[in-house]
Amino acid sequence: MATTTFRFSGGSRGDWQIVRTTVLCGDGLAAAPYLSVDADAAAPGDALWSLRGFVSNTRYATRVETTELRLVQQGLGRPQARQAALIPIRKTAAWWDLPQDERRAIFEETSHHTRIGMDYLPAIARRLYHSRDLGEQFDFLTWFEYAPEHGAAFDELLARLRATQEWTYVDREIDIRLALAGGA
Amino acid sequence: MATTTFRFSGGSRGDWQIVRTTVLCGDGLAAAPYLSVDADAAAPGDALWSLRGFVSNTRYATRVETTELRLVQQGLGRPQARQAALIPIRKTAAWWDLPQDERRAIFEETSHHTRIGMDYLPAIARRLYHSRDLGEQFDFLTWFEYAPEHGAAFDELLARLRATQEWTYVDREIDIRLALAGGA
Repeated sequence: MATTTFRFSGGSRGDWQIVRTTVLCGDGLAAAPYLSVDADAAAPGDALWSLRGFVSNTRYATRVETTELRLVQQGLGRPQARQAALIPIRKTAAWWDLPQDERRAIFEETSHHTRIGMDYLPAIARRLYHSRDLGEQFDFLTWFEYAPEHGAAFDELLARLRATQEWTYVDREIDIRLALAGGA
Repeated sequence: MATTTFRFSGGSRGDWQIVRTTVLCGDGLAAAPYLSVDADAAAPGDALWSLRGFVSNTRYATRVETTELRLVQQGLGRPQARQAALIPIRKTAAWWDLPQDERRAIFEETSHHTRIGMDYLPAIARRLYHSRDLGEQFDFLTWFEYAPEHGAAFDELLARLRATQEWTYVDREIDIRLALAGGA
């Protein structure tokens, strides 16, 4: 089976220019001008930091939610999606100690994580990479792509998520905004 | 964060003697006399095969189930637990395409996976290692330890699990029975 692990590296080269980095909570990362995304290999020689994560099966979505998502969402790499965000997130030990039913209840029934994301489909495309099980410094690498005219909507999406009960379990978060390097 | 990835290797050395290997379905593994278990590093030079997996958070257990499990289960490495089993398992693409609620329903409400395991606590200690997200050839490496007098109970536990609806999604399974090498 092909591995689905990817490496996100901040350094002097990459397809994405880092236009702004905001540390929401916890430690930051070294400042870097570019981001490269590669299938999991050794970190590039110019990397100032490097984060790994894998694509996996869904962990909380129900049949109803999955069906609705698949109808509306669009994939990565759309030509108009010249802006992106990499937002690495770590959750507390208290979160990971919760059983599945209580994590699900906080994630969706209380915090409406999937429901909020659906309000911004198909404009904001997203992909979740899991990091925690690799012994990495973050639990998740969240990735978003959108056209420049949807930047304000993306900020609104993040503000709504960060106001949820789920986010009280987030203890490290860095919001790294990106623009396609060499783009018009 | 410390990685929790382990490597199970079949070869000419190891703490566990391989006493019997049964291929339940799918491809087998090369015959090897010993099994070694190490923190994730390079495969030992004598390895005929090598499988990696990580310990992770629970994926299906509810608060009620988790509480009951923690009250009754015992850890690995008990001195009387001189027998063990490594049972690598792969599930079908159809399983992984299911949403969380339907996987949970098959796992517990229909197949009673946790409930069946509880019937054999504390005699049969177990630990689950996740492999699929590492791009490995199996999805899970399941590990069990027990005293020799509980071998028949362990066989019964496996027979009950293999008769469940959940097991119709298993398309590769190898049952590797082990005894502590050099044990009395």
